[in-house]
Amino acid sequence: MEFSAKQIAEVIDGEVVGNEHITVQTFAKIEEGTTGAISFLANPKYTNYIYETKSSIVLVNKDFEPEHPISATLIKVDNAYESVAKLLNIYQANQPVKNGIDPLAHIAATATIGKDVYIAPFAYIGEHVTIGDHCAIYSHVSINDNVTIGSWTTLYPQTTIYHDCQIGNHCILHAGSVVGSDGFGFAPTSDGYDKIPQIGIVIIEDEVEIGANTCIDRSTMGATRIKKGVKLDNLVQIAHNVEVGENTVMCSQVGIAGSTKVGEWCMLGGQVGVAGHIKLGDKIQIGAQSGIAGNIKSNSKLMGSPAIDYSTFARSTVLFKNFPEIYKSLNEMKKEITELKKLLKK
Amino acid sequence: MEFSAKQIAEVIDGEVVGNEHITVQTFAKIEEGTTGAISFLANPKYTNYIYETKSSIVLVNKDFEPEHPISATLIKVDNAYESVAKLLNIYQANQPVKNGIDPLAHIAATATIGKDVYIAPFAYIGEHVTIGDHCAIYSHVSINDNVTIGSWTTLYPQTTIYHDCQIGNHCILHAGSVVGSDGFGFAPTSDGYDKIPQIGIVIIEDEVEIGANTCIDRSTMGATRIKKGVKLDNLVQIAHNVEVGENTVMCSQVGIAGSTKVGEWCMLGGQVGVAGHIKLGDKIQIGAQSGIAGNIKSNSKLMGSPAIDYSTFARSTVLFKNFPEIYKSLNEMKKEITELKKLLKK
Amino acid sequence: MEFSAKQIAEVIDGEVVGNEHITVQTFAKIEEGTTGAISFLANPKYTNYIYETKSSIVLVNKDFEPEHPISATLIKVDNAYESVAKLLNIYQANQPVKNGIDPLAHIAATATIGKDVYIAPFAYIGEHVTIGDHCAIYSHVSINDNVTIGSWTTLYPQTTIYHDCQIGNHCILHAGSVVGSDGFGFAPTSDGYDKIPQIGIVIIEDEVEIGANTCIDRSTMGATRIKKGVKLDNLVQIAHNVEVGENTVMCSQVGIAGSTKVGEWCMLGGQVGVAGHIKLGDKIQIGAQSGIAGNIKSNSKLMGSPAIDYSTFARSTVLFKNFPEIYKSLNEMKKEITELKKLLKK
Repeated sequence: MEFSAKQIAEVIDGEVVGNEHITVQTFAKIEEGTTGAISFLANPKYTNYIYETKSSIVLVNKDFEPEHPISATLIKVDNAYESVAKLLNIYQANQPVKNGIDPLAHIAATATIGKDVYIAPFAYIGEHVTIGDHCAIYSHVSINDNVTIGSWTTLYPQTTIYHDCQIGNHCILHAGSVVGSDGFGFAPTSDGYDKIPQIGIVIIEDEVEIGANTCIDRSTMGATRIKKGVKLDNLVQIAHNVEVGENTVMCSQVGIAGSTKVGEWCMLGGQVGVAGHIKLGDKIQIGAQSGIAGNIKSNSKLMGSPAIDYSTFARSTVLFKNFPEIYKSLNEMKKEITELKKLLKK
Repeated sequence: MEFSAKQIAEVIDGEVVGNEHITVQTFAKIEEGTTGAISFLANPKYTNYIYETKSSIVLVNKDFEPEHPISATLIKVDNAYESVAKLLNIYQANQPVKNGIDPLAHIAATATIGKDVYIAPFAYIGEHVTIGDHCAIYSHVSINDNVTIGSWTTLYPQTTIYHDCQIGNHCILHAGSVVGSDGFGFAPTSDGYDKIPQIGIVIIEDEVEIGANTCIDRSTMGATRIKKGVKLDNLVQIAHNVEVGENTVMCSQVGIAGSTKVGEWCMLGGQVGVAGHIKLGDKIQIGAQSGIAGNIKSNSKLMGSPAIDYSTFARSTVLFKNFPEIYKSLNEMKKEITELKKLLKK
Repeated sequence: MEFSAKQIAEVIDGEVVGNEHITVQTFAKIEEGTTGAISFLANPKYTNYIYETKSSIVLVNKDFEPEHPISATLIKVDNAYESVAKLLNIYQANQPVKNGIDPLAHIAATATIGKDVYIAPFAYIGEHVTIGDHCAIYSHVSINDNVTIGSWTTLYPQTTIYHDCQIGNHCILHAGSVVGSDGFGFAPTSDGYDKIPQIGIVIIEDEVEIGANTCIDRSTMGATRIKKGVKLDNLVQIAHNVEVGENTVMCSQVGIAGSTKVGEWCMLGGQVGVAGHIKLGDKIQIGAQSGIAGNIKSNSKLMGSPAIDYSTFARSTVLFKNFPEIYKSLNEMKKEITELKKLLKK
């Protein structure tokens, strides 16, 4: 399918600067642009590419003012990133959709499957499972007894949902993700550890996306809960009894220890670690690789391991690099003081 | 099933304070208590919940003395955490158990399967595999040629055991865990790397629990060995030729590099990294996110990256936060010394 | 099969010191040597084991001069590590190879499968997939629509390749690895996040090895690209639109954020984190657990979070441990200066 700059501008409420009849049929990164492709410029780091891109159309923010001539047609919008998201969604919505239940899937007789569901070969669906309408269950997915899954949810290959857990509507679980594995709980004895049975569950609310090979443990009792709109990247660890508030985002390889409550609209950078049994407020931003050991107030911006206020961290870190020089200067001062004392005694 | 406070107290050798005839039929977290539930209080952080919990019974430590009235019946025991573990185990032992070999499993003709084994649809069991009695093999488990598995061991969905590896008795391997992938060994050449074949195996001894998506590499030659009673959380990495001593516990996302030996009864916090070719003694405690670069003596308590003695780390870390002020004060002192020198010259 | 020291020395161009007729039929670590085994000594840390090893033959570097008597026969070579790699490869090449397409595999009618391919039970191969000659596809591998795989490539159990991705020749993907999951891209809105569809792909070039449970996300548009000869250890995260240069090696649990370009011949230690939208040059070495926040020049050697020059880090880190003492001495100096000032005023 081909669309003209004019047609696209109408869809995303943009203003065409250049040839409104030029057409595109694909997307490309601005630095890899080709004739017939539409690109976008949202991150100022990539501004220099717009002057040399071969893309036919580039989406830009309204306030973008070129400093050199640009051969591409521009479409100016309020928010280039949001507009490209909209166009990509339209593109995606027009892709063919898998459907039907493959005879090589195993579906327990007691399971309930909704309408317009795709179930791939080798998917396993246990006893008393309920799956809503329009779900897609890819190959080798393992949905164990008594699991409930809402509508419009996608489970990519090799996803495992342990028994009794609940998944909401419009969720996406990527390949290899695990929901409901046992929480890591043991009682020490004189000759080893006794396992604490983990009889709770995991509840994943609506519109949650879970990355590849991410793990969410079931709770000892009650539920580990991932609230509406949460987005977890790949290889994230959520321990037992944790609660993650609405619309909180965690980048790859974050780990949250047991029984911790994370508020809503937080953003955790990659490889952040959060201790157990603590409480994080809302709208907290935590820099990559930070370690959080205690309760954190809403709206904090933190960095470091252990994490401190972001701006303090930035200043202290710069000094860390100069530490050998500072130490040298300290020793020199020490000598000077000794000298001064000698002089004074004279 | 319903049990009275009196009946429960008898099982866990506790003392009832309150109505010994009150009955419960489920478990609940103390902060989510409901009528008919039993809760427990072990972590003092949660003490305030006991005064408002709706649970019918709460297990507490013997030394707990309430400061306000409590509506729940208390059962006082030596160790509330151990007692709840015991009760949960009784509860768990009464849950229905899966059994039988599903016709959709693939079992090589040369494999030997013990008594009372459950094998789910789409499990793959290769040539010359031996599986002991009472094992549970969930869907999509891949047990490759010549693997030996003891009795009473559970492999959750999507677990992979590479060829020739050995798993002991009473082990639990969670979903997506991988045992026996190739060690990361390459010999550099002028135009790339030559793979060093990894012809060794992995040996998992008895009573080991391995978390979801945790990886344990086979050794170059000989064996990577996880000794009796070891507990590994989710997303842990154990490299080739590593040896982990009995009853050592590693939290989520720990990584141990090649050929390192970790002693027994150690505790490694989340996201700890340990370098290769080193030796850690026994009963070592390592704080979350620490990095261990060299040999460590038994009974050490360490923190930091690179890790240092725990108490030193605590003190240095506090000062790190004050670094900008310290630096300012240092510069002021420098000026004062210069002033003093001038004065003295006069 | 048995080989004499003389026969082995001929294959690896070595010089026999001792009994050239002694024979071996297996490999062993030098510290676990047995009669009939060949071991090697490459890392000087293990030198002491050579005087007590029970192995019949030990490969050593040419410059090795024993300080005590050795009972084993030595074979001296230019590079003991390379020579053992060569021998292990010969050993490996003589192991039996799996072949044939199992009737329990699911192969779409539109897929094209090369010659001498092994496809295990429960492997899933989607529409229009192309697989080259001599590939091995283990159980529960999921190869989705339109994927292309070269020749001599091995996919271990539970590997997932999402639709449209491309894998080269002579690649090895370990169990649970995921190629082509959605990049982590969302546009914030007032009441949550809109998903940015990820319509790009992943391209894995030739001779790439990917560790167990490692994840490589597809790009938003264009391709995430892993170039020839790259080696990724277990549990590594490669985000969308990343490019990894030829022969770069990443140890376990490394994470690379979106759109970053890593040069060739780099070495990243375990648990390293690299920020998004930056550029790393060639032949960079990054110490374990380091965090990279900005562009890095070729040939840099870095350490720390945030990472600084390696030698500066080493010096600053030593001082960090002495920080409490330094602080004490600083406060003493402050007092002395005050004393001096008082004295001078008199």
